[in-house]
Amino acid sequence: MLVSFEGIDGCGKSTQANLLVRYLEEKKQKVILRREPGGTKIGEKIREILMKEEITPKAELFLFLASRNLLVEDIKHYLFRGYFVVLDRYVDSSVAYQGFGRNLGKEVVEELNTFATDGLIPDVTFYIDIDVETALRRKGELNRFEKRDFLERVRKGYLLLAEEYPERIVVLDGKKAVEEIHRMVVEEIERRWKFDS
Amino acid sequence: MLVSFEGIDGCGKSTQANLLVRYLEEKKQKVILRREPGGTKIGEKIREILMKEEITPKAELFLFLASRNLLVEDIKHYLFRGYFVVLDRYVDSSVAYQGFGRNLGKEVVEELNTFATDGLIPDVTFYIDIDVETALRRKGELNRFEKRDFLERVRKGYLLLAEEYPERIVVLDGKKAVEEIHRMVVEEIERRWKFDS
Repeated sequence: MLVSFEGIDGCGKSTQANLLVRYLEEKKQKVILRREPGGTKIGEKIREILMKEEITPKAELFLFLASRNLLVEDIKHYLFRGYFVVLDRYVDSSVAYQGFGRNLGKEVVEELNTFATDGLIPDVTFYIDIDVETALRRKGELNRFEKRDFLERVRKGYLLLAEEYPERIVVLDGKKAVEEIHRMVVEEIERRWKFDS
Repeated sequence: MLVSFEGIDGCGKSTQANLLVRYLEEKKQKVILRREPGGTKIGEKIREILMKEEITPKAELFLFLASRNLLVEDIKHYLFRGYFVVLDRYVDSSVAYQGFGRNLGKEVVEELNTFATDGLIPDVTFYIDIDVETALRRKGELNRFEKRDFLERVRKGYLLLAEEYPERIVVLDGKKAVEEIHRMVVEEIERRWKFDS
């Protein structure tokens, strides 16, 4: 089962991804966690470029796609062996950040995602929604207004995706307590997956 | 004027690109030379990944496209200022190497090239054709048969492109002497560009 966590920075998705991994391990499931960009040896080198350098929107998109294509090989390897694969960001991040945030457009990014992943989409995606004010306050970067506009577009992108794919994307309120969000994640996983024990 | 040199390694294109740059400088033209992948600060970091690592065909393509998109910004900057821009590899390399060599397909690579370059194609492309045997002999890698098959597909790709775009792509015989090829390059440039002096 392939599970992804999505949302803008500060929404709490990495925390939730880690909590889900711990829960699955307690349930004696085989599980791995991967992050994007990165997750593979070359992917981490690409991540380094993406995190450090000022770059054009299209080059940024291509670097994410390169990293993603390498990650997909890795994901398939584990899925075939019966693992749960938990992803901290995946295809929806590119649609939200590059498609909406950088204004490259939803359709072109979705097409490129399909090409890069050979159509491998998550069984379930948890989008943790949070308003931009709260996210910036948590991150302590309230003064960067340009960034605020950008994140507003990203959030709008996520919400549109959630509307378009209601079966796959579960929207969770990022202002709720960590434990409560975790409980909702687990309920959703248990609804979709019958554990043996 | 945007000029690119193409061909499989060992065909002599880098030599010819350098000779053309020297010729243009002697003609008192403003000229820059760029290589692909690379040519920009981040592009050179991407080049390092591409040259050192084993990578999937699609990730390879995306890294070339990222590098190319960054290079295009740089190329436009110089073209607007009246420079000759000479490129050691450009869009046709991806079609030949990833489209044909790695079997990703001509159409998809051409589409991605257009997206990555905003449609910026060379005014003239010199494809220096050489048979794979000769190229391998020059490079001293005759024993790698897998590589030979790959390069045969790449060469076939280049020849198909030259057939499809006869106005843009000039095919030169890479077995001719360096000076003779250079003379043909210069003739073609002078036919397409009237120098003031």
